[in-house]
Amino acid sequence: MLKLFEYNWQVRNEWLDWCESVTEEELLKKRTGGPGGILYTLFHIVDVEYSWISWLQGKVPPHEPPFEEYATVQKLRAFSERCHSEIAPFVYGWNSDMERKILEDENSDGEAENFKYGEVMRHVIAHEIHHIGQLSVWSRELGKQPVTANLIRRGLFDE
Amino acid sequence: MLKLFEYNWQVRNEWLDWCESVTEEELLKKRTGGPGGILYTLFHIVDVEYSWISWLQGKVPPHEPPFEEYATVQKLRAFSERCHSEIAPFVYGWNSDMERKILEDENSDGEAENFKYGEVMRHVIAHEIHHIGQLSVWSRELGKQPVTANLIRRGLFDE
Repeated sequence: MLKLFEYNWQVRNEWLDWCESVTEEELLKKRTGGPGGILYTLFHIVDVEYSWISWLQGKVPPHEPPFEEYATVQKLRAFSERCHSEIAPFVYGWNSDMERKILEDENSDGEAENFKYGEVMRHVIAHEIHHIGQLSVWSRELGKQPVTANLIRRGLFDE
Repeated sequence: MLKLFEYNWQVRNEWLDWCESVTEEELLKKRTGGPGGILYTLFHIVDVEYSWISWLQGKVPPHEPPFEEYATVQKLRAFSERCHSEIAPFVYGWNSDMERKILEDENSDGEAENFKYGEVMRHVIAHEIHHIGQLSVWSRELGKQPVTANLIRRGLFDE
């Protein structure tokens, strides 16, 4: 489980580096598909991971902050680092006994809805990889090479 | 590990269903980003999973077959089902003792390159989710709702 989080964090940081070479106008431009723009998609990835894992940590899940407060690469990088520092201890402390713990939620009709902790962890992993796939299409639309999505050859399994 | 494969297989089948409502011309059209088209991307997902897992199973990794032989939804669905039936036993038989087994490869310069089995398994998982993210952008370009990428609420953790 941890390796896939580490993969996501590494890829996310590479996309933030990639953003440094793109104009603010292109980063903020509304695009077709996904959450609707490059920088907002990265913001959304950070926010969703932070919200779910905070909740698993027993905190009140935070509301999405206003994107306007993080709408530059520098501010978004700081937001990502702050969220990461808060949730990383939980991810590194993960063990298989936590798989079946229950997170109690309500659906949009106010009815009880339960998720297993292991389900939420994998949801968060898949969420980020999926949205990064969208960034890769927009990158090619800009005529730029996207960050590699390969998980192999990243040193994640070196000892 | 298994749950993320099951997620991918479920999502892939839903995309194949989605393809039934799209014209052949749109499915085969060359697009910006990703492997270059909707049906070819799904073919590539199946082929890459099949090749890597066959290799982990100790078989000679197959070469990519000609896409032209699978360039309809019906043929691609049959290809996906055939590959799945061959690799599923390995995925269902996965256990943590297999994590650190070594797959010996050569890089493009003919130099020895090793991957851990656990690394390859996660590479295959991330590969499919990433490409599905690309399909979701192209779906919106066609004015169509994409298959949901949510991992929660799929019944994957029901007993």
